[in-house]
Order: sequence, then structure tokens, then C-alpha cells
Amino acid sequence: MLYIIGLGLSDEYDITLKGLNAVKSCKRVYLEAYTSILMVDKDKLEKLYEKPIIIADREMVEQESDAILENAKEDNVAFLVVGDPYGATTHTDLVIRAKEQGIVVKTIHNASIMNAVGATGLQLYNFGQTISMVFFTDTWRPDSWYNRIKENAKFGFHTLCLLDIKVKEQSIENLARGRKIYEPPRYMTVNQAVQQMLEIEGLRKENGKWFYGDESLAIGVARIGSDDQVIKAGTMQQLLKADFGAPLHSLVLVGSRLHELEAEVLRDYAIDKAELNRVLARDYGIN
Amino acid sequence: MLYIIGLGLSDEYDITLKGLNAVKSCKRVYLEAYTSILMVDKDKLEKLYEKPIIIADREMVEQESDAILENAKEDNVAFLVVGDPYGATTHTDLVIRAKEQGIVVKTIHNASIMNAVGATGLQLYNFGQTISMVFFTDTWRPDSWYNRIKENAKFGFHTLCLLDIKVKEQSIENLARGRKIYEPPRYMTVNQAVQQMLEIEGLRKENGKWFYGDESLAIGVARIGSDDQVIKAGTMQQLLKADFGAPLHSLVLVGSRLHELEAEVLRDYAIDKAELNRVLARDYGIN
Repeated sequence: MLYIIGLGLSDEYDITLKGLNAVKSCKRVYLEAYTSILMVDKDKLEKLYEKPIIIADREMVEQESDAILENAKEDNVAFLVVGDPYGATTHTDLVIRAKEQGIVVKTIHNASIMNAVGATGLQLYNFGQTISMVFFTDTWRPDSWYNRIKENAKFGFHTLCLLDIKVKEQSIENLARGRKIYEPPRYMTVNQAVQQMLEIEGLRKENGKWFYGDESLAIGVARIGSDDQVIKAGTMQQLLKADFGAPLHSLVLVGSRLHELEAEVLRDYAIDKAELNRVLARDYGIN
Repeated sequence: MLYIIGLGLSDEYDITLKGLNAVKSCKRVYLEAYTSILMVDKDKLEKLYEKPIIIADREMVEQESDAILENAKEDNVAFLVVGDPYGATTHTDLVIRAKEQGIVVKTIHNASIMNAVGATGLQLYNFGQTISMVFFTDTWRPDSWYNRIKENAKFGFHTLCLLDIKVKEQSIENLARGRKIYEPPRYMTVNQAVQQMLEIEGLRKENGKWFYGDESLAIGVARIGSDDQVIKAGTMQQLLKADFGAPLHSLVLVGSRLHELEAEVLRDYAIDKAELNRVLARDYGIN
């Protein structure tokens, strides 16, 4: 059997009892380590599980899935995913391959940022589609997310923005020369995400109408689910400079349908209460 | 401290290690029992926790929150919620009250249908806003969700529909006479939800354009996260008659942006593969 097990958001104790029991029954344990990360090292997981963990990078999952699935008809194999297993497309692919080989697949769910973002006080009902923001380079500045935000804005939905992480990436030079030398990991901050969004907004501002900008309301979150989680609400201009500390960060654009009860919670997270109240009154008519 | 602890989706073993440790530290343990239910009785939870559980119905949470929060500055109190704590507005309200009283609040997240619906193979990125469907009565047939589906359809988003549960409800007669006699619990089935949706669609069909109807593609799910979870994909007409067994059920309307990889997973869940393929080709151009 292939167990696909969500680890939750923060540390080794976020696994469920069901998940831990499943891991303990497994001959091999893989940890997917490129779409998200836990805030603890793998030795803490190994100590809890009392067995070794094989780190599965993108290359392994996408190109060597047969190795992961080897003997999984007879033995139990665990594939651990930070958050919930269905956050990233890659895992769907692994499930399809397993089923093609007649391997029974069982999923053990857990929290992910997609539902834990409710900790901001915004109602999950009022979110539209989620977007992903990747690191811009000098030559590659993808902005397909811009239209997705516009679509959400059209009906006043909130938008959750997931921020890029780069682990085990090669520089263009090392890639070209076939050298397996990897850059240090990078995790996009709220500041970087806001900066990229404002840059694109400046370029594409359409018909003089803006749906987000310097003055619009957003929420930055960091390390949700951990003891030192941070939630800060303010204008994008404020979020550009606010400090959120260590990874992982996410960003939420607040939609125009903001409810009074949501706003009440946001006040607790205000970077500057007076400024937040000014924006709530001006843009949302909430006093 | 007030711990708000998500229990996950299915049984007592879906709690996280962190959640269980927190419960064990608490003097009083409340279980919120009106927005969702686990598939096991509370005695199983009590056995695992080694302490008694107080069932908190809507009346208690909304009107007697001071009793729940009593002494929570000194003692630890647990408020258990099926799924993730931030699925329902009610809990936001409890958090606000606790903070007003200077009580430290800590949330322990877990899976909820809002992210576990990824088990259908549909990408969470492609969902729009979530809707709730309540039981129609002879005199009350709320359909504000209709416009929300229309909004999602405008951009091709999938729509998750959460289905009503009625626990500890009084009949109108008993309510009028002040008799605290409660009706048996009711959980809306996929069949009932589809039936109500088709009824409203028949009444409101606008400008001859439909965004859902007898022939459109949807997915019914039941008991997600449990060993006997059911996922069935088909036309709404097919779902009207498909058997999903015991509660809880949810429904997903498949948006026009369906990706080929999503469709591939759906084929595994087809009520009738030939019919599903016909609809995929006709409505989505996927062969």
C-alpha cells in the first residue's frame, strides 16, 4: 500500500495519530521536500518515527517514481507531504502511477495553508481562486496571476497568494555546464511578493481602475500553526516594509466583500490601527 | 489558555499529536457538535483522551460562552471542532470573546473538507468561493447560493457545496410551545442537494444560458478521509440517483476550466465511464 500522508504545517507533532501509525507500518518513508517545508529538520521526524527518511526532491518524484513505488503492492510505503497531500499537482501524478500499477493508495489528510489561512479571521467561504507567485528573474517575470486576481476582484473575493520556494536549484551557469552544484534555498517573503505585485500593477494598470495597489488592504502571514506565527494586516505599502521573520510566508489580498466580523478580527492584527481603520472606512464603509 | 483544536474529518485518530497533548493538559473539554460531526461517538474520544467531554450545542456556544471561558486564564480549556477550527463563523466569535477577556487563545489546525476536497483530483487552485446548501422547507427556499455559483461559473471555477446538517432542531410546533423536544438529526445527501439545485435552476434559468443543469458535470463525495470514503463523478442527473451511504456528504460542481490531469483522475470515479467521457468531450473538449 502507498500511504500519502499530510504532515501539517509546522513541526513533527502536527502529524495525526492515524498518520503516525501508518508511518510506523512502512518499510520505506519518503519526505517530499520541494513544494513546502516543515520548520524542523528531518532528524526530529526520524526520531519520532524511529526509522530513516529518504528525502524526495522534484527530480526523484517526477523521474524516479518507479523507485518510490517499488514493491508497494506487498510492502507499505509512506510518502510524506508538508501540509495536505493534495496541495500540489505532482502528488496527483504519483497517485495515478500507483493506481496504474495496481497499488492501493490511501491518503491521510492534514491541515494546509489552504484552510489554515482562516486563522487571519477571513472566512474561507469568501476566498476565490488561489494564486502562486514565483521569484522574478531579469528575464522571466510571469504575471498570469494578475488576471486571476482581477477575476477574484470582480466579485470581491479574497485572494490567497502562495509564495515561491526554491530548494536545490542550480544556477543557469551550473545547469548549462551540467554541474550538480545547488544554490542555497530561498523562500519568498511577504515583502518580495508585494514588491513584485506592485511592479506588475504599475505596468498593467487598466482603464485607470485598480483592484489592488499601494493603498489596498492585505494580510501577510508567516509560520501559521507554529508558536511564533505572525499575522499582520495593513496596506500593501505597509506590508512592503513589515518584518515577518523566518519562512514560510503567504499573502492574502482582502476582497471588497469583507464582512464586519472579519474586519473586527483584522483590527487585532493591524500594523497600525489608525491606518487600518482609515482604509476600512474609506474602501469598505466599515467603521 | 483556550485551545481551539481541529479534530480532522473522520474518527478519533485524526487528531494531531499536538492536539492530543493539548487536550490532555485541559481541565475542561468541549466538543462543538452542530456545524459538523465525526463518524464515531464521543465515548471513543473520551477513552482516547482519558477525560470526559462536554457536548457544546449551538445554544451553549452562542449564549453561554462565558461558561466555556470560565477560569480559562488560569486553567487550560479545550474547544474541539470537527475539521479545522476556522470552518464556521461561530468559532471566530468565541475567539474574539476570549481575547476581550485577556485569555490566550491557541489554535491547532487540522484537515477540513475545504482542503481535503482535493481528494477528488480537482486542484484546489481552481476552486472559487464555497457555498452552503440548507434544507428547503415548504416556506423557506433560500437560493442566494445560486448567484455565487453563477459568479464562479463566469470564470470557470469549481464550486464546493457544503451540505446542511440539522442536529437538535425543534419542530415549529415544539418551538412555538416552548417544548424542548428535538427532532432526529438530519444530514443532507448529495441526492437532496442536487434535487434542490435543479429545482432552483429550473425556476431561474436566465437568458437561456445555463451554468449548471441536468447534464452538467459534478462530483459527489461522502465520508472523505475515512476508510469507506466515496467519490462519484457524473452528470447531475446521475448524481440525483447515486447512492453515497452514510453522512457526511458534499458536492462539487466542476468548472469549465477543468484541466486534463484533473479529468484523468475523475475517470477513476466515473459513475459510468462512457457517459463521463461523452460529457468531457462535449463540454470540455477533453478526449
